[in-house]
Amino acid sequence: MRISTLSIGDELICGQLIDTNAGTIASRLLLEGLRIQRHLTVGDNEPDIIGALSDLGRISDTIIVTGGLGPTADDLTSRAAARATGRRLVINEEARGHVRQMSGKLDNLIVCPLSDKQAMIPTKSVLIPNPSGTACGFHLMHNGCFMFFMPGVPSEMTIMLRDTVIPFILERVPHKRVIRTVSLNLFGPCEAEVDELLSGIARAELGLTLGICVNFPWMKVTLRAEADNDDAVTDLLVPAVSTVRDRLKEYCFSSGDLSMDDTVAELFRDKCLTLSLAESCSGGLIAKRITDIPGSSGYFSEGVVTYSNEAKTRLLGVPADLLNSCGAVSSECASAMAKGARAASGSDLGLAVTGIAGPDGGSEEKPVGTVFISLAAADGCWTKRFQFNGNRDEVRAMTAWTALDWLRRYLLKRE
Amino acid sequence: MRISTLSIGDELICGQLIDTNAGTIASRLLLEGLRIQRHLTVGDNEPDIIGALSDLGRISDTIIVTGGLGPTADDLTSRAAARATGRRLVINEEARGHVRQMSGKLDNLIVCPLSDKQAMIPTKSVLIPNPSGTACGFHLMHNGCFMFFMPGVPSEMTIMLRDTVIPFILERVPHKRVIRTVSLNLFGPCEAEVDELLSGIARAELGLTLGICVNFPWMKVTLRAEADNDDAVTDLLVPAVSTVRDRLKEYCFSSGDLSMDDTVAELFRDKCLTLSLAESCSGGLIAKRITDIPGSSGYFSEGVVTYSNEAKTRLLGVPADLLNSCGAVSSECASAMAKGARAASGSDLGLAVTGIAGPDGGSEEKPVGTVFISLAAADGCWTKRFQFNGNRDEVRAMTAWTALDWLRRYLLKRE
Repeated sequence: MRISTLSIGDELICGQLIDTNAGTIASRLLLEGLRIQRHLTVGDNEPDIIGALSDLGRISDTIIVTGGLGPTADDLTSRAAARATGRRLVINEEARGHVRQMSGKLDNLIVCPLSDKQAMIPTKSVLIPNPSGTACGFHLMHNGCFMFFMPGVPSEMTIMLRDTVIPFILERVPHKRVIRTVSLNLFGPCEAEVDELLSGIARAELGLTLGICVNFPWMKVTLRAEADNDDAVTDLLVPAVSTVRDRLKEYCFSSGDLSMDDTVAELFRDKCLTLSLAESCSGGLIAKRITDIPGSSGYFSEGVVTYSNEAKTRLLGVPADLLNSCGAVSSECASAMAKGARAASGSDLGLAVTGIAGPDGGSEEKPVGTVFISLAAADGCWTKRFQFNGNRDEVRAMTAWTALDWLRRYLLKRE
Repeated sequence: MRISTLSIGDELICGQLIDTNAGTIASRLLLEGLRIQRHLTVGDNEPDIIGALSDLGRISDTIIVTGGLGPTADDLTSRAAARATGRRLVINEEARGHVRQMSGKLDNLIVCPLSDKQAMIPTKSVLIPNPSGTACGFHLMHNGCFMFFMPGVPSEMTIMLRDTVIPFILERVPHKRVIRTVSLNLFGPCEAEVDELLSGIARAELGLTLGICVNFPWMKVTLRAEADNDDAVTDLLVPAVSTVRDRLKEYCFSSGDLSMDDTVAELFRDKCLTLSLAESCSGGLIAKRITDIPGSSGYFSEGVVTYSNEAKTRLLGVPADLLNSCGAVSSECASAMAKGARAASGSDLGLAVTGIAGPDGGSEEKPVGTVFISLAAADGCWTKRFQFNGNRDEVRAMTAWTALDWLRRYLLKRE
């Protein structure tokens, strides 16, 4: 089955709105073992829409179209669909009834003449019900190609896709292959290193593929198995996932949609430990990420952002002598901050970072990107110097990621 | 000029990653008066890439391609480009030098054999420099069509687009109309209110259009003027911008790319005042945004994130009695936190927020989204209760935006 998607809209082709429909359709179909071959976007322009339908029609047996079914003058999809497939555009009474009923429900507006436009449907089409909006969708068959037309509003489109389009497509898939994917999230190594670590696992000839997706500064490894039946997919996928996990070891922090922040939160809840933070160069970013997670008040008591030396001394008890002799960006200062944060709050763990995020403030000895991270606990205090690359945002992001990864690794080792 | 874009990547065609490059390219070109005609996406698959280049080549005189130039085995764009245009794929010494130099800089890794793959470029191509990544881009001419190839990493692509691709395209545009845009950023009113405030300003028939783009929780109003020459554009644009500014008044916090955070930073530098923060429900988000800006150490001395009551008392001097009688989410507590932050640090301004970000912790009297913001200064202390809607992330975002907007409005009024 060769499936293409077509998104229609001036706001999409001009970059004023990012298209999420194509991604939604692709990922929903992938769960059913179906892959999109091409995704095309054009503006609200009749010749472009007709050209797109004709070009995609040549290489596809199914086209899923979204957008351009609205009530305003720049919504041209129905007319273009009629022209492209040699049909007339006529008032569809069922669609008109729906438009009138929904207009009343949605806006408490008097039905305006415009709304009849949304009831104009190409002849020899079947309506696709839209339970949450005014625009009905429709589908038709042209030159051996099924074409589905849905409105571009993501919430409406998603329901119509699930309830009508996907069931319709699945009924027509001749020999349905089973496809499952498992994704693992990792932090630490570079892409080339991951590629080497995972070499030889993918076996495309057996239906097992592996993709690496970099989302700075973390990565997602996705294993995808395709076979005739569920057991065969399991036989491919289970050992492969286990091999990937073995090779990635501690780099892998979670699977699926679980973020680094979620993972750290889960560990804190499991281990019943509490945390306090002392941040300098990350400026509250670590506290922000910890408190992004609902329920973080259960283990996070407080954080301080100490930009000035005076604040480091007053809030964390870092000795003024130490600041004078070693400097605020030093291993000694980081340890004193972590211990100070832990002691002041009575938390189980104190985590501190101090460094130079840039763009200014670097020196030959301590260039921009120099960061010290320290973790103080009952069983010791560990401090390490890092050298991160990139601009201020990237150095700060790497600092927060590395600090959270330290917490994760420490918590994993705790009983 | 007929321009198309092509995004290449399995993660895009499978819906695992939303493509932002196409939108970036479209909106940057639109600023120059150039429109994208088609945008196509295909997976990391040689026949599909070759088919896409050939189909787009038939209807375009320029194709801008992103993605698939990475070091791993599934990056196939260079090879497909060579095949599609009848070229050989050869090691390009300049590209190889660049890969080696950047690999060392970025990862502190020994150059691994993989990286030579990124130096394989089709013959008769011109390199597009990539100052921030390992993959050089390249461009070539085939059957009267210019094809530009860039890596898919958005930060790298954006620089290459700006520095090489757009200047190259502009040199070849025959009769260029003059187009200029001015955008103003605003926070506070809802879209319908802005729409009403700005009614009647756009004059499409004269070449003056106005667009409102909502980027929760702020908005961008863009005025775009198009005419035959520079003077005519100025005559259209200048009075319109001035009218928009008059009507938006204090809602408008900046113009162009200047963010709210930049604006607040600029005001702090201008007014030579210092700030300390006391955050509860925003959990460090305000400190993070203040310290996102380079040079913030000049006016920001410290912040505390006090989730527990005990920390509010110890770090900010909020009386335990007050916490017992009024609760931590109260006007009284917010004022005490702001005054405490100011007093402890000796800063000119103390800003505090306390509230219920959710999803739990709300009551009938103080539902989720209840937030108190307080600003303490030498000339007084102001505290206000807000009721924000949305989920935890949205309540926290609105809290930080509103707090920063308070700072902005206070600083604007200071001599």
